[in-house]
Amino acid sequence: MERREQFSGLAALKKPDDFFHPGISVDCVVLGFHEGILKILLSRYEGFDAWMLPGSFVFKDEDVDAAAHRILKERTGLDNIFLRQYYLFGDAHRNLTLKKESKQSFKDVYGIDIDENHWFYRRFMTVGYYALVDFTQVQLSEGYEGETIEWKELNSQLNFYFDHEKLVQKAIETIRQQSGYIPIGKELLPEKFTMPELRTIYETIMGRSLDRRNFQKKALSFGYIEKLDETKKGGAHKAPILYRFNPEKYKQAQDVGMVALGL
Amino acid sequence: MERREQFSGLAALKKPDDFFHPGISVDCVVLGFHEGILKILLSRYEGFDAWMLPGSFVFKDEDVDAAAHRILKERTGLDNIFLRQYYLFGDAHRNLTLKKESKQSFKDVYGIDIDENHWFYRRFMTVGYYALVDFTQVQLSEGYEGETIEWKELNSQLNFYFDHEKLVQKAIETIRQQSGYIPIGKELLPEKFTMPELRTIYETIMGRSLDRRNFQKKALSFGYIEKLDETKKGGAHKAPILYRFNPEKYKQAQDVGMVALGL
Repeated sequence: MERREQFSGLAALKKPDDFFHPGISVDCVVLGFHEGILKILLSRYEGFDAWMLPGSFVFKDEDVDAAAHRILKERTGLDNIFLRQYYLFGDAHRNLTLKKESKQSFKDVYGIDIDENHWFYRRFMTVGYYALVDFTQVQLSEGYEGETIEWKELNSQLNFYFDHEKLVQKAIETIRQQSGYIPIGKELLPEKFTMPELRTIYETIMGRSLDRRNFQKKALSFGYIEKLDETKKGGAHKAPILYRFNPEKYKQAQDVGMVALGL
Repeated sequence: MERREQFSGLAALKKPDDFFHPGISVDCVVLGFHEGILKILLSRYEGFDAWMLPGSFVFKDEDVDAAAHRILKERTGLDNIFLRQYYLFGDAHRNLTLKKESKQSFKDVYGIDIDENHWFYRRFMTVGYYALVDFTQVQLSEGYEGETIEWKELNSQLNFYFDHEKLVQKAIETIRQQSGYIPIGKELLPEKFTMPELRTIYETIMGRSLDRRNFQKKALSFGYIEKLDETKKGGAHKAPILYRFNPEKYKQAQDVGMVALGL
């Protein structure tokens, strides 16, 4: 973690040309489920009027996967995390707009004066990772100098930094497609959960409402979700039935993939 | 295509440090179906005792996607191709073994003497793309200087260059997982095909044999494959029934994803 304090956040910009692996960064879409809402972890720097994904450059001797784990460890305190690479954003002109957005803020707010030839303004590709985390386990860090880290509702109208909205959309699209073979509720829900909680996650990812009865029937047909002989206490309404992911069948589903096709 | 002749293949190695986007390359897993066998397009350079994936470095002003399309256009003549990015291989020590494998060959066979500080020996990430092509439409190019390009059976025992076997395995694993929402037969088969042909493709991707009857039932349950009132002529056995992908339903399936879950 020593490198974090020295070279992450704004301190990274003061490093020389050949300090990081050139032309590549990592950005993470971190999702958590809390009080019936799917949320995304975002950060904002003072002087920037937009939310950005937790991200970093890649150390010269660091695996890209390790960089993604490091970023999340730094922000959430979590070590063992469900983390998947989903896309390399490799458009040639990806960071041309960065110049306009950030140059003045660096100078005004942080007193960092970097010229137009600085490596930060060269072409950058970024590798997107998405993470599904247990909201209750996350300990948000204080962030770097000038940084605020917050959970925001995924579907709210947010002002995103640069192309980060596109990065989020692609992550959701990927999770939507993968939800045929990755049981997406497991990582986000507590051990015991209700069917409406599971449905809300699917509805948010799918971007539309799902029929209550059909969803329940389909979810149970996966084979790895089982009904418990328990109900959730404490609500104002009739206590809803609790379910859980059967660990063995869930493991099988992950190993085999192709759950849905049943081939 | 001008850039191809000047800067692809071995000619690329003679370019200066800052000619390509640093530290990244593109490699393509190209699959085609011919005479009942799933095949992969591979190339081999004189002096190298191993097959490699068609690949390239990325020009400084070139989208990564465009680089992948260029690589395939160069080798197969095809413009409109089913091409998907599937993974960035970003291990820090990815190309350390390259030194041993290639240095002597470059000198002995091609007379190119590149020293250990050459950019080719620095850390390289590679972006994997996979392509599903219509075998009959492919016009293999002659390749670059010293290069042989061939279709090889996917499951045969091949000696792969460097980590390219891992790249192939990851591509197949991805296609296997995505086969729940991407109808993988469509791009590989002629317009009209038999059920055994479709099953062979799935069997190769899944790496195991599938029950004939169950497969047929499942395949038809997708909703986008329809039985034709025709049989395939010319075989020694009873003429098998022909099928086709219904274009409209296939399009819907692609748009919606989640075909299999039916959510």
